[in-house]
Amino acid sequence: MMTMRHFYLFSLVLGTLGSLCVLFTVYWVQRWRGGFGWDGSNLMFNWHPVLMVTSMVVLYGAASLVYRLPQSWVGPKLPWKLLHAALHLAAFILAVLGLVAVFNFHYHNNIANLYSLHSWLGITAVALFGCQWLLGFAVFLLPWASLRLRSLLKPVHVFCGVAILSLSMASVLSGINEKLFFSLKNGTAYSSLPPEACFANTTGMMVVMFVGIVLYILLVSSWKRPEPGILTDRQLRFQLGPESRPYPVAYMPVASGPPQ
Amino acid sequence: MMTMRHFYLFSLVLGTLGSLCVLFTVYWVQRWRGGFGWDGSNLMFNWHPVLMVTSMVVLYGAASLVYRLPQSWVGPKLPWKLLHAALHLAAFILAVLGLVAVFNFHYHNNIANLYSLHSWLGITAVALFGCQWLLGFAVFLLPWASLRLRSLLKPVHVFCGVAILSLSMASVLSGINEKLFFSLKNGTAYSSLPPEACFANTTGMMVVMFVGIVLYILLVSSWKRPEPGILTDRQLRFQLGPESRPYPVAYMPVASGPPQ
Repeated sequence: MMTMRHFYLFSLVLGTLGSLCVLFTVYWVQRWRGGFGWDGSNLMFNWHPVLMVTSMVVLYGAASLVYRLPQSWVGPKLPWKLLHAALHLAAFILAVLGLVAVFNFHYHNNIANLYSLHSWLGITAVALFGCQWLLGFAVFLLPWASLRLRSLLKPVHVFCGVAILSLSMASVLSGINEKLFFSLKNGTAYSSLPPEACFANTTGMMVVMFVGIVLYILLVSSWKRPEPGILTDRQLRFQLGPESRPYPVAYMPVASGPPQ
Repeated sequence: MMTMRHFYLFSLVLGTLGSLCVLFTVYWVQRWRGGFGWDGSNLMFNWHPVLMVTSMVVLYGAASLVYRLPQSWVGPKLPWKLLHAALHLAAFILAVLGLVAVFNFHYHNNIANLYSLHSWLGITAVALFGCQWLLGFAVFLLPWASLRLRSLLKPVHVFCGVAILSLSMASVLSGINEKLFFSLKNGTAYSSLPPEACFANTTGMMVVMFVGIVLYILLVSSWKRPEPGILTDRQLRFQLGPESRPYPVAYMPVASGPPQ
């Protein structure tokens, strides 16, 4: 069973790693790809990797973990729901801006849209994210849905959140890989592993670690908001026989959540 | 709560989708990339995508779901453990053959090894898979480990299995993307989305769906092997007050598994 000290250690590692993912992506395009612009040129394209890593990985990951904060475990849930929704909305808006950057770059340079597998993965991830947000808003924030409907949809909502994060990770990684093949084909080849390639590959590996830690906290840890009116693994132990030691029974919202 | 009918429906979809992932990859290299050989040429490389999709995605995914088979829920667990380990070992051996195919191709054509992000992701996935198999074998099959150690490591084992599958998916997708940019740069460009590109992109999207369904069955469903000596969500209900209806308490091995 994870302790609170572990939780804060994980949060520190996660915050550092997430910031590094964004900073490394910014440094990559600033140092080797000419920096930023909003003019339809390569400099406009450069917003694409930065915005997608920031929105679909780092902000998305952080927003997913709102209910793991011990501060969210007491008192009314609504403020935390609003925070969860607001952070995800901010992530979605940044992701759309990231798409605008690449579509506009393609438009100004007569490059076809949505032909590569990377683009298919990415557009699917953003589209699913949009649907997930709307459905989550309609069911968990608007007041019409019954407790029964919410408890039915909650595990689906959590699973879809995890699936979209995995897909985002695959999109981001295939995108970094593709960009390096594009950029390093004349002159210094990608295959000679110049500093830019090594740096951007490392950024990709940090994205993998960040997503890995987010999934770990979401799926495995016991840092879950205890649901009101339901016994949790922090309170609930079974004694199977009079002689046996009490056995903790885990409560896992992913498997079958109670109404909330 | 998922019913058994759903389980068999999911299994049917999963089996079909997994077979299609392999068949589509074979058809891709057979129809457009000249087929197979074991001679250091492009034809040897062609084994790489086929073996990696077959091993790290399809066979790995199927092997992960052994304990979800209702047949595995009764009787001794050891035969199912052996099956789980044997299928994963077969997957690992095929993955190593897939690596031999690409390293040998590089060797014969003076191409550097392990420079692209795709290769970093892939080699990490296979290395972690090897560690995971060895650790799983040592702890869960060899008889020395205590029940306490097994129950501590089980959620870690399940989480690492899920993480490796996500990483494999990202490797496979970035590899398909990269291969299409390599193959379609002279003559018909990838950006004009020729039939080969459309077909291979579709294969990639099927890999995404396959992995999504595997993760769903692993993480969300209630098709879990009931542990002997521990009450499960199939038997366990709480009545919070004398008037309230009995409330099911979920048992989720990922969160905190009992000794086995």
